[in-house]
Amino acid sequence: MTDVHRAEPGLDDALTYLRDHADEHLQQLDEFLRIPSVSADPARDADVRRAADWIVQQLTAMGVERAQTHETSAHPIVTGEWLGAGPLAPTVLVYCHYDVQPPDPLDEWIRPPFEPRYEDDRVYARGSGDDKGQLFMHLKAVEAWLRGSGKLPVNLRFFFEGDEEVGSEPVEAFIAAHPELLRADLCVVSDNDMYDDEGTPAITYGLRGIAYFEVRVTGPFQDIHSGQYGGGVANPANVLVKLLASLQDDDGRLTIPGFYDRVRELTDAERAAYAELPFDEEAYRKALGVPKLSDGERGYTLAERLSARPTFDISGLWGGYSGEGAKTIIPAFAAAKFSTRLVPDQDYREIERLVVEHLTRVAPPEVRVAVKVIHGGAPAITPLDHPGVQLAARALEGAFGKAPLFHRSGGSIPVVAALDAGIGVKTVLVGFASPNGNFHAPNEWMPLANYRGGLDALARLWAEMGSVSPDRLRGSA
Amino acid sequence: MTDVHRAEPGLDDALTYLRDHADEHLQQLDEFLRIPSVSADPARDADVRRAADWIVQQLTAMGVERAQTHETSAHPIVTGEWLGAGPLAPTVLVYCHYDVQPPDPLDEWIRPPFEPRYEDDRVYARGSGDDKGQLFMHLKAVEAWLRGSGKLPVNLRFFFEGDEEVGSEPVEAFIAAHPELLRADLCVVSDNDMYDDEGTPAITYGLRGIAYFEVRVTGPFQDIHSGQYGGGVANPANVLVKLLASLQDDDGRLTIPGFYDRVRELTDAERAAYAELPFDEEAYRKALGVPKLSDGERGYTLAERLSARPTFDISGLWGGYSGEGAKTIIPAFAAAKFSTRLVPDQDYREIERLVVEHLTRVAPPEVRVAVKVIHGGAPAITPLDHPGVQLAARALEGAFGKAPLFHRSGGSIPVVAALDAGIGVKTVLVGFASPNGNFHAPNEWMPLANYRGGLDALARLWAEMGSVSPDRLRGSA
Repeated sequence: MTDVHRAEPGLDDALTYLRDHADEHLQQLDEFLRIPSVSADPARDADVRRAADWIVQQLTAMGVERAQTHETSAHPIVTGEWLGAGPLAPTVLVYCHYDVQPPDPLDEWIRPPFEPRYEDDRVYARGSGDDKGQLFMHLKAVEAWLRGSGKLPVNLRFFFEGDEEVGSEPVEAFIAAHPELLRADLCVVSDNDMYDDEGTPAITYGLRGIAYFEVRVTGPFQDIHSGQYGGGVANPANVLVKLLASLQDDDGRLTIPGFYDRVRELTDAERAAYAELPFDEEAYRKALGVPKLSDGERGYTLAERLSARPTFDISGLWGGYSGEGAKTIIPAFAAAKFSTRLVPDQDYREIERLVVEHLTRVAPPEVRVAVKVIHGGAPAITPLDHPGVQLAARALEGAFGKAPLFHRSGGSIPVVAALDAGIGVKTVLVGFASPNGNFHAPNEWMPLANYRGGLDALARLWAEMGSVSPDRLRGSA
Repeated sequence: MTDVHRAEPGLDDALTYLRDHADEHLQQLDEFLRIPSVSADPARDADVRRAADWIVQQLTAMGVERAQTHETSAHPIVTGEWLGAGPLAPTVLVYCHYDVQPPDPLDEWIRPPFEPRYEDDRVYARGSGDDKGQLFMHLKAVEAWLRGSGKLPVNLRFFFEGDEEVGSEPVEAFIAAHPELLRADLCVVSDNDMYDDEGTPAITYGLRGIAYFEVRVTGPFQDIHSGQYGGGVANPANVLVKLLASLQDDDGRLTIPGFYDRVRELTDAERAAYAELPFDEEAYRKALGVPKLSDGERGYTLAERLSARPTFDISGLWGGYSGEGAKTIIPAFAAAKFSTRLVPDQDYREIERLVVEHLTRVAPPEVRVAVKVIHGGAPAITPLDHPGVQLAARALEGAFGKAPLFHRSGGSIPVVAALDAGIGVKTVLVGFASPNGNFHAPNEWMPLANYRGGLDALARLWAEMGSVSPDRLRGSA
């Protein structure tokens, strides 16, 4: 690592370009956020594709080469590259996703999710923080270098996917099929948030994995009268709640045999670092609107439980009658979607197997229980002393005037583990969304201060990374 | 009770009338079943009213006097009377309901629920069995006497309600406000089924009550990201399944303190009678399409559990995401509708209080738990040796050529208990639907053999009841 900050003559030009084109860029952001690229909804397939095409047009217009979409088993993947910095400069892969979560419940949005609203220096829209807003910032930071300064200090490759919100199913196969389009000394991912809403930047050094399931309990061949049949027939909804309730014990731990076998316990150093993170539990509780925070898994602090411990959460329940008044039935079926968040070194494929086996084993013989694996993703950890992490920290401090905090994230970004496993590329996560930004919820928002600071930080990031050799950035020199 | 069957000269004329007008009556039945009188759906209020008006027109046209609708707190009640048999003849109150259950799930109906389908000597339509088909049979049996013979052997009053499927809320107040419209020596209710599909008639001597609830668990003020927040916030769906699962123990008994305190245990005689009812458990299981019948509450036979023991059944579950793919959220709320069927001498008001108190007491402090009482109804029992029961048995045997079986029913008909408590009128239940007729389910149907036999039986019923004095029919002579 170089101790002396080498001045990068083009940086000022890039930053000037960003200031001069701020209004035009906001208009383009608006255009991008209006595309309802909901990957979970087959009715939105054409819109997801439209978002991919929009990115290709942007990349091509700013001078990125071979910008293109690739067909996959699901939605298109976008790649492109600018290799003008030459073989002596490092190559960095930029990953973001252009798909978004479903916007429902729609009636809780103050304005429709795909009609951005600007208020209090925030932009409200589905995808504003997760992750189209951050993808857009990467586009504009690169454009600022290429148009403002004429060239970038690093070689860049781009990898934008449209299936992150539904489990990134095509990513693994794509990495295996097209390593040449993705090869890099480091990957930079922006799909996470700053530490707070006071401009404290953060670098994420770990991610949780996930295993997501759907379970369906089927009983009588159709809904039947609860007076006529009640007492004689196992009620699928009664069985479902018993099954789900049995998955977690009174200490907040999952009861599935073998579930904790590979969990890497927090080190003393990590627990000390967690203890130092500022965390206002009362403010957190109030922002969520809950009467009391969960005790969760016994033996761990709230901050630890939020990112370094596995979880069990039901995301959806349905079955029977939910309309007005009373319908006195035993429903034909009842179903749930649920997931467990995983931590290093849990293997999501093993967890999928354990969960399916367990539910199949405990299912009572009076009903049929079908468990479907919806998607899985591996957890990940990146060493704190990696050069890429340190250079990114400097870029963030330069843009925001504060050193970043380092922590793990509770969420899952399947591509991070897939890139490591597939082509040996480590990832640094620098994100600019708000930790209170309503990801996956109604009225998602992004602070425009973070947007402006993030553009600045990303422009600086390429100057920082261009100041070291490829081997150094890779962490091998 | 008279031992000699007094010939009723008008009966043959009534039966002839029914045969001569069979086609015309079926057309009218079709017209009635096409009115979507779904009481649970406010969007159907006008249709419910249309069904009430249709009945008034029918009654008026056949010569019933003072046929009218009455406004209530919910849907209209229809009354009318024919008192031409004079004060020496008994007076019988006829009760049925003209509202129907919601038809969803709509996509499981072979034909739309309000377009009757005729196939295999059955009529398929919502309300064909429960209860518009049976109400219609009462209309036509009365019409057959009045038009075919010129008069009825008994005085009749009619009491048809439009809220039975949503708990009969207005019935109690109506009985209190208008006892003069309902006063009778006996009530005949037709809202139940024959014993099998081989033409074995049945008389029901007991009914279960019900207490129906909605519980809603609310957590964060909106859906939140399960990665970002999982482990820190109590998940309302996790809490709901724990709460619901805790309401029933491994022996199939409810865990609510005090719940069983007033349950009248089955007598040895009743258990012996239950043991003699023909019941093909394997055919029953196959018809339901379940892999195994429920063990249910330990210590009771299937037939006993189906009508003489309390139950706990979840009728609906909802909350969070149930669409395509994966949405990784902690839902803002999760909710359920559930009921317990009650048996003599449980008091539904007491049970409502016990359930609400229990859920409130066990609700964890991390969420808000709201329990709403949707409706309640008392259980009922009528003595087997009551003259009205014996006369009804004779009418059924005359029409179907087989003596009826006697048993309790698992369902609830709130009006039965309300008439007893309100104006001291006992009820005899004679029903003609199929026990496999998909009450409250898609593709509800009524056997047309039961329809024809039921018309015959009801015509005979008035001859039988006209053969005794009012005091005798009342059971007091």
